[in-house]
Amino acid sequence: LSSQNIDEFRDVFLEQHPYDQAKFFVKLEEQDRFTVYHYLSPGEMASVFENIEDENDQYEVYLSEMEPTFAAQMLAQMYADDAVDVLNELDKDQVASYLTIMDDEAAEEIRELLHYDEYTAGSIMTTEFISIHANQTVHSAMQILKNEAPNAETIYYIYVIDEDKKLVGVISLRDLIINEPDTMITEVMNERVYSVSVAEDQEEVARQMKDYNFLALPVIDFRGHLLGIITVDDIVDVIDEEASDDYSKLAAISDVDSNDGGPFSAAKKRLPWLIILLFLGMFTASLIGRFEETLDKVAILAVFIPLIAGMAGNTGTQALAVAVRRIAVGNAEEHSTFRMILTEAGTGLITGTICGILVTLVVFVWQGDIFLGILVGISILATLTVATIAGAFIPLVMHRLKVDPAVASGPFITTINDIISILIYFGMATLFMQYLI
Amino acid sequence: LSSQNIDEFRDVFLEQHPYDQAKFFVKLEEQDRFTVYHYLSPGEMASVFENIEDENDQYEVYLSEMEPTFAAQMLAQMYADDAVDVLNELDKDQVASYLTIMDDEAAEEIRELLHYDEYTAGSIMTTEFISIHANQTVHSAMQILKNEAPNAETIYYIYVIDEDKKLVGVISLRDLIINEPDTMITEVMNERVYSVSVAEDQEEVARQMKDYNFLALPVIDFRGHLLGIITVDDIVDVIDEEASDDYSKLAAISDVDSNDGGPFSAAKKRLPWLIILLFLGMFTASLIGRFEETLDKVAILAVFIPLIAGMAGNTGTQALAVAVRRIAVGNAEEHSTFRMILTEAGTGLITGTICGILVTLVVFVWQGDIFLGILVGISILATLTVATIAGAFIPLVMHRLKVDPAVASGPFITTINDIISILIYFGMATLFMQYLI
Repeated sequence: LSSQNIDEFRDVFLEQHPYDQAKFFVKLEEQDRFTVYHYLSPGEMASVFENIEDENDQYEVYLSEMEPTFAAQMLAQMYADDAVDVLNELDKDQVASYLTIMDDEAAEEIRELLHYDEYTAGSIMTTEFISIHANQTVHSAMQILKNEAPNAETIYYIYVIDEDKKLVGVISLRDLIINEPDTMITEVMNERVYSVSVAEDQEEVARQMKDYNFLALPVIDFRGHLLGIITVDDIVDVIDEEASDDYSKLAAISDVDSNDGGPFSAAKKRLPWLIILLFLGMFTASLIGRFEETLDKVAILAVFIPLIAGMAGNTGTQALAVAVRRIAVGNAEEHSTFRMILTEAGTGLITGTICGILVTLVVFVWQGDIFLGILVGISILATLTVATIAGAFIPLVMHRLKVDPAVASGPFITTINDIISILIYFGMATLFMQYLI
Repeated sequence: LSSQNIDEFRDVFLEQHPYDQAKFFVKLEEQDRFTVYHYLSPGEMASVFENIEDENDQYEVYLSEMEPTFAAQMLAQMYADDAVDVLNELDKDQVASYLTIMDDEAAEEIRELLHYDEYTAGSIMTTEFISIHANQTVHSAMQILKNEAPNAETIYYIYVIDEDKKLVGVISLRDLIINEPDTMITEVMNERVYSVSVAEDQEEVARQMKDYNFLALPVIDFRGHLLGIITVDDIVDVIDEEASDDYSKLAAISDVDSNDGGPFSAAKKRLPWLIILLFLGMFTASLIGRFEETLDKVAILAVFIPLIAGMAGNTGTQALAVAVRRIAVGNAEEHSTFRMILTEAGTGLITGTICGILVTLVVFVWQGDIFLGILVGISILATLTVATIAGAFIPLVMHRLKVDPAVASGPFITTINDIISILIYFGMATLFMQYLI
């Protein structure tokens, strides 16, 4: 870029993989970006834009730097699903103005895709697929394919539709190649074609694609019309996003993956959670405050507060993680909620009994006080059992209520279990006070 | 199956997608499985086996139920990478005996793949790829492709090698189709071919495949010879596995995803962690025990133990999650460890100051004691700062030491931060005792 030589720049730049082009582009300063817009055609810029991983709402900045007509042409030449991702970051007014200066066909395609809700199959599908009618030969299908190959997002599946645009079959390029040119499509196409509904959750689409090892899946409306396709590269992103989302929530942080500019932006992402947890923690503290009298008499009780609360938090997090993942991989429907809770209750009872016995022994040896040992041990037993059930019960109930169960993040379950454990521990201590002093 | 009619069963069964065949198969009772082995050819059984998601070491059970020759033929007809996955679950003796009764070519191929370490590119690659020499035309390449299509795992990339089997280029089926039959391969092939080394970590392979949207990546040895390919369907599984692995570790549970048979097997997976954490918790308790005198004098101090320890745990988990993910997505190399720690220190200081001020105010209003408020507030400030640094520092150092940083799971960081927070809190309380009584 520094050489100011347009040909040299184009030679070197365009030889790179678009992903590397994008990586190079996002590192540029504003004035160098202007040069790039100048040096590249809208179509070349489109493939750069398709590969930008937008983290800090940079799409809007880049678009505002371009000439509006250049930006509109670039958007029109992007794969429609990627263009929609970009436009979803903008204000409605801006979207409308880009769509008006775009050519009608591209604008229409994008407008349709913009309708679909986020996280549905419709929002990640593309309309650049290849479809043919059934009354053709392998040879003529290959001809269509050759013509459409430069524009289609994948050419490895060709979808067969009837006069009404209903999806009736699929044929892979592999099948086209190994069959004789004069074979009829009806003879070689697979009529058992897997498809997803346009309103289907993207996680469910990812699951099907992963299980069946498809490279693309067709998307249909409720009457069976073919609307678009979802390709495996989009699904890889979905799987990655959803996993990072669950992970972020378990760690109580709004988005673990986005690149942070420094301590202030990092603090901004973590503080809301910390402040909520702080007030929940104050509530726990006020609960202990109610037992001040007990504490005054037997100060040693305080020693075991973090142990008991901590164990409740740990076991609750384990149960939570299992429940969230079970829901995520779709196993939750196969078993009754009741049976899962029962299993967790059993798990809590087993782990609680073993940890409880261990604690009783250790406290007895350490403090030489069997009553204290038994008190702490039984608290651990009761706490672990209840905390395990709570860890599983809360996300499962949220799932039935159609709330994303991962919102019940680790620290929330931990705090709830802190409260439960302290009530159990001090409740019992107050009850059996006579044996402790 | 109940009808005992072999033709009817084969008609219905073989029409299903292999993934559905596998789902059906794993639900069968032992005697029904025997019928299936009887009704299907080794090749048909191979595609069922490729789609089984083994969770409870069932591969071994199924194989032992089959005639050894049937099993060996089936393994030979599976894609080599899938066969290796199955064989990796068996004893070395069993593997050797299956390989001896297998035909030599398949045995050789499998034997080579068995050499590679788990989690490397070599362990997930397959040897069923299509390669051609550069001195051919598009037409002759298409002929080779037609012949090999039924056996290759993917036909969408064809790799170009020289006489020495070194990888020199790649051409996609898309390019073959849109170019004229008499074009030379050298003219249309892409010489900038992305490849991975056979010893590369599978996570790194997944990252490249995801970033560049490849459907397959060639695997080469250190001298550039083409050894195999990795297809996107295997990568989808890797991404899913690695994410679930990080998630499991954050929740301190050995494998969050595997289907559990009941409370006993669930307890078995969680107990080891719980017991380790229990002893770490006992250590925390013994620390508080050292401050018993302080506690005896000012029992109200105990009230804030879970709040302070809890906040330390929460902020540490946040910092840990950010550090683990940053390492996982490969950003760790780009910045210096020192700068990342500095950012985290800044983040801790900001969140600590804000939470500290909040706590001071709340405690002052609630307890009417400004000294207690300041003590708790300053403890929160110091704790959050140190805990945030610890949460980031520990995984980063582990990464430099080539230990998987996710092993520093949530609960471990939480426990370490419990200890730090209690030392700070009680240390300060003991120091400023005179203002508290």
